[in-house]
Amino acid sequence: MTIQIFDTPEVQDFINTIAGFDQDGGNERAKKIMHRLVSDLFKLIDDFDVTEEEFWSAVSLLNALGSQTQFGLLSPGLGFDHFLDMRQDAIDAQAKRTGGTPRTIEGPLYVAGAPEAEGFARMDDGQDNDGETMWLTGQVRDTEGNPVANAKVEIWHANSKGNYSFFDKTQSEYNLRRTIYTDNDGRYTARSIIPSGYGVPEGAPTDVVLKSLGRHGERPAHIHYFVSAPGHQHLTTQINLAGDPYTFDDFAFATREELVVPAERIDDQAAIAKRELDGPFSEVVFDIELNKTDAAELQTRHARPRAKEDEQDQSSQQAGTAQV
Amino acid sequence: MTIQIFDTPEVQDFINTIAGFDQDGGNERAKKIMHRLVSDLFKLIDDFDVTEEEFWSAVSLLNALGSQTQFGLLSPGLGFDHFLDMRQDAIDAQAKRTGGTPRTIEGPLYVAGAPEAEGFARMDDGQDNDGETMWLTGQVRDTEGNPVANAKVEIWHANSKGNYSFFDKTQSEYNLRRTIYTDNDGRYTARSIIPSGYGVPEGAPTDVVLKSLGRHGERPAHIHYFVSAPGHQHLTTQINLAGDPYTFDDFAFATREELVVPAERIDDQAAIAKRELDGPFSEVVFDIELNKTDAAELQTRHARPRAKEDEQDQSSQQAGTAQV
Repeated sequence: MTIQIFDTPEVQDFINTIAGFDQDGGNERAKKIMHRLVSDLFKLIDDFDVTEEEFWSAVSLLNALGSQTQFGLLSPGLGFDHFLDMRQDAIDAQAKRTGGTPRTIEGPLYVAGAPEAEGFARMDDGQDNDGETMWLTGQVRDTEGNPVANAKVEIWHANSKGNYSFFDKTQSEYNLRRTIYTDNDGRYTARSIIPSGYGVPEGAPTDVVLKSLGRHGERPAHIHYFVSAPGHQHLTTQINLAGDPYTFDDFAFATREELVVPAERIDDQAAIAKRELDGPFSEVVFDIELNKTDAAELQTRHARPRAKEDEQDQSSQQAGTAQV
Repeated sequence: MTIQIFDTPEVQDFINTIAGFDQDGGNERAKKIMHRLVSDLFKLIDDFDVTEEEFWSAVSLLNALGSQTQFGLLSPGLGFDHFLDMRQDAIDAQAKRTGGTPRTIEGPLYVAGAPEAEGFARMDDGQDNDGETMWLTGQVRDTEGNPVANAKVEIWHANSKGNYSFFDKTQSEYNLRRTIYTDNDGRYTARSIIPSGYGVPEGAPTDVVLKSLGRHGERPAHIHYFVSAPGHQHLTTQINLAGDPYTFDDFAFATREELVVPAERIDDQAAIAKRELDGPFSEVVFDIELNKTDAAELQTRHARPRAKEDEQDQSSQQAGTAQV
């Protein structure tokens, strides 16, 4: 039996009341968005004849997702992060900001305040015995091919078990997280370990949602980047290592053709000695092209709650005050 | 600048992938509902030009709501519980199940397994010094006016501070929660204390949502009921005490005209003595009419996660097994 009450005056009036249309206070945009959201959801309940059992199961699942801070994990899994990127791409195209390395999703695992280095940094703490040595390097250029010196390259990635420091408390502080400023030739280089892909934990609320859609929660091995430089558009991106079974089947929809990069195994003794390594390693080369822009708001990453970022902002502000 | 990408083939294909339309496994209904939900939300983001900052604020708020188990509190505040009631009313009307005491929302604070009594129960533990004595009584009848003996009347309400036992750990177990079976004349009687209304905690995530809509989070003083009897439709309802400033301005939209009941102050010594009380009290009379039905599924409350309900089911099952 299907009951449709959405279009009745009672329900329409009710939604106006829910959204606070008859209240003086509050935020006009919040009210309008809530009116739309509640309308869409009420209509969905009508159209699918959603039962009370189904509704309350959904409420329980929402509570479970929040209690494990998983909305930032579910969001890319349901394509929201990539959809926002598609919108930003369209906005850039409309403004004729074309070219440059493509953006892709940030994910929820950035931590502000990583150690800074110039030109080169070792990112791993040497404790991950399963970690294969990775030599990660590249050049930051503008879209005309000019090297960008002193660009800020923030890199973070998982360990050989697919876990990130800070969230994985068994790792040392800022393990596999570094900020490297490019040298005069626009180059950055990191010694690290090859990251592993990872999956949404079995049985976690996000996994429950994905399983109900017949989907998996696996990500390929990948490396996150924030890249910025004055006069250039801030870039949030990731590279996926080629050859991972999930390279083109990422549950978070972060893969983009131009961002798939091979890890080349190198055994050559001279190459090993030149890098002061003690054995074979895998080299990953990722050059980055930044779009030029004069607009200040395009030169920084968008606001979003990030681990330790408020703290950093505060200490930067304090440092700033101290310098005055 | 408004960018509309929702109708592009790329986005439409993407939503099919998100919903698992290309996967064999999963649940067909879940896929269809998710396809609709994601479509609605993507279109909302397009239409309102939702920024990344706004999106990630919303994600944080969802995490905060879940971490405090507040989706069951936000849900009535956004009218979902009442909307589901409106749908059930329409379903009843379509099936010609009219008359009887109106339903209203259950709320998230029921706890299964309250002590049972026949005819009369004292509900309060005598520890609430601010609690004014309440004499709560009524008759359960069918819609033809016949008394229903042995009807199961489950009652739960807040204390004088607006708090519920179990969730408020300062109260004794099952304080202000009782199951009373009606006597041969269909009557139930409870000695308890007048409950106080309560508000969503200041600054809680639910409060943040309501404030953004210019709304408050207050509920009037009210008393919850589940009423059931074989051959009759299960009733979930509440009464609101008349005269509360929020009686007709309930943030949870539970008030219905027929469910507003006065609490009548009684000083008469004979009336006090007859009830074996030691001073003046307030009498609340709430008669209940149940619709007759042969349909078994209408004779029980709908499934929903409830505190201690699984436990109860298990112990009933165990008791059942023991009896075999």
